[in-house]
Amino acid sequence: MTARPADLAARHAHHLDAALKACATREQWSPFKESPSSKIHGEERPAEGKARFEALLGRPFELDQPGTIGAVGHEVSPYTLEPLAIAYPKSDPDALFSAARAAMTGWNCLTSEERAGVCFEMAFALEEQAFANAHATMHTAGQAYLMAFSGSGANALDRGVEALAYAYKAMADVPRAAEWEKNFGRTGVVRLKKTYRLRPRGVAVVVCCATFPMWNAYPAVFANLMTGNAAILKPHPNGILPVAMAVKRMREVLTGAGLDPNMVLLAADEREAPITIDLLKHPACAIIDYTGSQRFGAWIEEHCADRLVYTETAGCNAVVLDSFDDMDAAIGGLANGLCGFSAQMCTSPQNVHLPETGVRADGKTLSFDEAARRIVDAITRRTENPARAAGLCAAVQAEQSLELISEVREKVLAAGGQVLLDSRPYAHPDFPNARTATPLVVSVDASQIDLYGEEVFAPVCFVIREASREAALENSARIASERGAISSYLYSADRGFIETAQDRFAEAGASLWINMDNRMPINFAAAYSDYHVTGLNPAGNACLADLAFVADRFRIVQFREPVPAAAAE
Amino acid sequence: MTARPADLAARHAHHLDAALKACATREQWSPFKESPSSKIHGEERPAEGKARFEALLGRPFELDQPGTIGAVGHEVSPYTLEPLAIAYPKSDPDALFSAARAAMTGWNCLTSEERAGVCFEMAFALEEQAFANAHATMHTAGQAYLMAFSGSGANALDRGVEALAYAYKAMADVPRAAEWEKNFGRTGVVRLKKTYRLRPRGVAVVVCCATFPMWNAYPAVFANLMTGNAAILKPHPNGILPVAMAVKRMREVLTGAGLDPNMVLLAADEREAPITIDLLKHPACAIIDYTGSQRFGAWIEEHCADRLVYTETAGCNAVVLDSFDDMDAAIGGLANGLCGFSAQMCTSPQNVHLPETGVRADGKTLSFDEAARRIVDAITRRTENPARAAGLCAAVQAEQSLELISEVREKVLAAGGQVLLDSRPYAHPDFPNARTATPLVVSVDASQIDLYGEEVFAPVCFVIREASREAALENSARIASERGAISSYLYSADRGFIETAQDRFAEAGASLWINMDNRMPINFAAAYSDYHVTGLNPAGNACLADLAFVADRFRIVQFREPVPAAAAE
Repeated sequence: MTARPADLAARHAHHLDAALKACATREQWSPFKESPSSKIHGEERPAEGKARFEALLGRPFELDQPGTIGAVGHEVSPYTLEPLAIAYPKSDPDALFSAARAAMTGWNCLTSEERAGVCFEMAFALEEQAFANAHATMHTAGQAYLMAFSGSGANALDRGVEALAYAYKAMADVPRAAEWEKNFGRTGVVRLKKTYRLRPRGVAVVVCCATFPMWNAYPAVFANLMTGNAAILKPHPNGILPVAMAVKRMREVLTGAGLDPNMVLLAADEREAPITIDLLKHPACAIIDYTGSQRFGAWIEEHCADRLVYTETAGCNAVVLDSFDDMDAAIGGLANGLCGFSAQMCTSPQNVHLPETGVRADGKTLSFDEAARRIVDAITRRTENPARAAGLCAAVQAEQSLELISEVREKVLAAGGQVLLDSRPYAHPDFPNARTATPLVVSVDASQIDLYGEEVFAPVCFVIREASREAALENSARIASERGAISSYLYSADRGFIETAQDRFAEAGASLWINMDNRMPINFAAAYSDYHVTGLNPAGNACLADLAFVADRFRIVQFREPVPAAAAE
Repeated sequence: MTARPADLAARHAHHLDAALKACATREQWSPFKESPSSKIHGEERPAEGKARFEALLGRPFELDQPGTIGAVGHEVSPYTLEPLAIAYPKSDPDALFSAARAAMTGWNCLTSEERAGVCFEMAFALEEQAFANAHATMHTAGQAYLMAFSGSGANALDRGVEALAYAYKAMADVPRAAEWEKNFGRTGVVRLKKTYRLRPRGVAVVVCCATFPMWNAYPAVFANLMTGNAAILKPHPNGILPVAMAVKRMREVLTGAGLDPNMVLLAADEREAPITIDLLKHPACAIIDYTGSQRFGAWIEEHCADRLVYTETAGCNAVVLDSFDDMDAAIGGLANGLCGFSAQMCTSPQNVHLPETGVRADGKTLSFDEAARRIVDAITRRTENPARAAGLCAAVQAEQSLELISEVREKVLAAGGQVLLDSRPYAHPDFPNARTATPLVVSVDASQIDLYGEEVFAPVCFVIREASREAALENSARIASERGAISSYLYSADRGFIETAQDRFAEAGASLWINMDNRMPINFAAAYSDYHVTGLNPAGNACLADLAFVADRFRIVQFREPVPAAAAE
C-alpha cells in the first residue's frame, strides 16, 4: 500500500484548495507540466516514454480486471497505417457492472476529501505517463506530438481536476448533520437530530471519442468517482490504448490505496461487434457520459432517458467576419484554427460567414474575394512546408474524413460553388505513410445551407457569401441554435457590432470568442476558466464544468430522530 | 409602480441572507407567520380572509392574462359537495407560451438580487392572503383549516423561499467576469477578458396536485423565476382556486415592479378536456415541474425526455415497528400520521410492518395482536369525537378515495386478511355534507404484497405480519426502493437495529424518520432542513431543495476577447 486515502487527502489538500480557487476566479492555474521540453523533464523522460509506448505494441495489454472472456483490438495508427496489434481484454458487461457495484460499497465510506485525495493521486500518476500517453494518443487519434502531450495530457487532466473540484463543492454544500428545534405550541419545543448521507447514483458508462480520448473522459471519471459512482470506460475501437493505459494507472492507484480497483474498468470493443448499446442499456447503468457524434448523442438522449445523460457531441462552428484592427494577426489565428489537428476538434471553426460587401481592415475595405484570398494564403503558408504542416495539421484519424473531403468538393462544385483551395495530402517528415490532408476551402452562397449546415468532420472550410455583416450574424447564430455550436468566432473592430453579436449569440445559446488572434490557438478551451458546451443548443449538455455537471450525480438520504430529553437539556 | 426591482432587492436582502443561512445550518427559520391565531393577526383578519374567499364564489375569476378563449371551472368543495361555480379563463396554449417567452426578455435583464427581491415581495404578498388561501385550499383540497393556513401557507411559502435561495446560490457560483492570462511561450503572454452570461432554459410548465396545490408549486415557480424562466401553472381541475389566487397575486407584484406580468400564467382546464399533455408537449415547453400520480409522472419521464423534468409523485411509505422507549407517545405519533389529512399526503405512512414475534415496550413484549390493537385504539380515540376527527382527518378530496377504501376492504377480506378497524364517515361539526372517512385498518400477511405494495391514495393502513424485525426491515426497504417512498418510519429502542436500518434504507435510497412521537406531526417536512424526495426511488426526482433542483435550470454563455495591449499594461 503506497498511501491510505486519508494520507492522500492530506497530501493533496493544497491542490484541492487551489483548484477550488481557480474555479472561482477563473484565472489560469495548473498543477501539471504542459510542455514536453527536455529542459523541464530531463533528457531521458521523452525517450523513456516513447520506449514504454513501443513496449506495449504487438502483444496483449496486461489489465487485470474481472469478466475477461476473450480479446479484442484492431487499432491502426493514422501515422503508419500499421496495426498496433495490441490485444485488450474483451469483457462480459454483466461481470463489469457487478464488479463496479461491489466496489462502490467501500468507496462510499470515504470522505469527500479522501476521494479527492485519491483522484489527485490518480491525476499525478497519469501525468507521470504523459510521454507514453502522447505516443499512444498520436498513434490512435492522429494528434501531433505536442498536442498529444499537452492537450491530451496536462490540459485534459486539468479538466478532470476541475470536475473534481465542482463535485467537491456540490457535496460540500450538503451538511452532514444538523440540530433543528421548533416550538409546536401545546406540545412544547421539539428538538430533532438530523443526519444527511450522500449516496451515489450507480455505475457510470463513459463513452470516449476517437480524436480526444481522455479530454472529456477525465472530467467524467473524476466527477463520477467524487460523487461515489464507479466508471466503466468504453473507448472508441480505434482509440483504446490511451484509455486502457489510463484505466490501468487509475486501478493501480486504487489498489495502492487499499481500495477496490473496480471503481474504474475498461470495456473495449471492435467495430464489427460493438458493445456500447449493451452497456448503455444495461439495467445497472445509471449514468452515461458520452462524447462523440451528434447523431448517436441524440439517440442516447432519446432512448436512455431513464438514465442520467451527459453529452458532448459536435458543433457546426461559425466565424463571422466584419472588420479588423490587425487583420494579419486575426487571419493568422483563424488559419491556425482551420488547420489545427485537421479540424478534428469540437471547437474547430468550419463556416466563415463573409459579407459580400467585404470587410474593413487597416482603414480600407477589402472585397469578399480579397478577404477570402487572405484566408487561403494564410492556410497555404502553413501547409506548404511539410514540417510546419505536420506540427499543425497532424494526421487524419479516420479514412472516412478523406471521403468527406471528396464529397464536399463534389457537392460544392455541382452546386455552382468554387474551390478556393484544394485539399491534398502533405508528406509527413517522420511518417511517410501518414494519413494527411490539408484543408479544403470552398466558397458557397448563404442560401446553400444544405452544403454547410452540418458539421463536416474533416479539414473543410466553407467561405459563405452573406449579404451583409448583419446577415452573417443572423445566419451563424441561427445555425448555432438549430444545428449546434461549441465555439463560435467573431472578428470585428466595431464595439457596437460586437455587443449586438453577443446579444444574438446569447439568445442562440452559443458562446462567442471575439478577435482571437495568432498569439494562441483560437479554440483553446481552458480548464477552470472557459465553460465548455452551453447545453442550450444541439451540441450537447455537458458543461465542463459547472454545478449542473455534478450536482445530480449524487443524492441525499436523510435520517432524523428526536434528541433525547437528557441530551436536550 | 409600488417599488422597482432594485428597491425590492434592498428591501429583502436580509431575508435572502437569512434563507441562505438556514439552508446551510438547516435550523428552523421562517419569515412567515405559521399560526392563524387572532392574537397574532388581530380579530379582523380571519373574518376578512373568509369574506375575501366567499366573494370569489359563483362568478368569473378576474385574471387579466393573454390568450383567453373561453371559461372553465367545475370545482366542487369536499366540505359542502357544492360547486364553487367559479369560471376561470380558458387559455390558448400558444398564446400563453408566446406571452411567457416575450416576458422573459425583460426579466432576464434583472440581477439575481433583483429577481430574489421580486420573488420575496411575491411571497409576502401571498402571505397577506393566507386566510383567503386557507379557505380556498379547504374547499378544493379538503384540508382542515389549520393545515390549509399553515401547511398551504407559511410552510409552503418557506419551501418556495428555500428553492429561491438554492437558485441564488447556484447562480452566485458563476462569476460574471474574469481576466485570464497565460504564457504561450514564443508568442508571449496572452491576456483575455472573459464574461459569463446566465441564460434561462425557456418556459416551465408547473403541474400542481389536487391535495396540496401550492406546496410543490411555490418551489417550482421561484426556482424557475430566479433562473430566468417563466412559469405556466396548470392546476388540478378541482384545485384551481388556490393556484389562480396565487397567480393573480404574483402577477400583481410583477406589474407593481414595472415588469411584464406574463412571467407567471395560469392554464386551467377541466377533467373532460384536459390540456396537460398539450402543455407538456408544446415545442416551447423547456421545463416540467410535476406533482401528482406515479403513473403520470413515469409517463412524463418517458415521453418528455427532451425537456428538463422534475417530479414528485407518490410513495408507498412504510413504518417498521421493533421496540419502544415510550410506546404511548410513539403510537400516538403514528396514529396522528395515519389519520392526518386522511392520509392524502405524499409523506403519510401506509404500511405498518409488524413482527409476528411482537414488539418490546416498557420492559415487556407485546404480541402482534396487542400491538395492532394499540394502533387501532389510538386511531379510534382520535376519530370518535367529530371535532377531533375534523381537525385531524379533514375531508377526503376525491370520491375515488372512498371507492379505494371499499376496494381494499373487499380484496383483503377475499384474500383472508382481517379488518382490524373499519372506515366510516364521521359527522363533520361544521359541514354536514363533508366527504369524510376515518382510517381503514387491515391486517395482511407479508407475502400478500399485491395487496399493500402500492400507494393507496386514501386513509388505509395495512398492518403487515412479518416473520421478524429483520424481515420487516428488509421488506419495507425493498418496497421503498422498488415502488417508491418519500417518508419512511422506524420505531426502535435498539441503537444497533437503528443503525442497521439506516444502512439498509440508505442503500434503498429512502429517507427514514426514527422514533417520531406525538409531540409533532411525524410527517412534517421542514423547509431549509428536511430534504424532500431522494431521487433514488420511484417517488420522483425533485429534491426540495438541493443544488440539483436548480443548477440545470439555467445555463452559461461565455464571451472572451483579448485585453487590448494598452489596457494590458
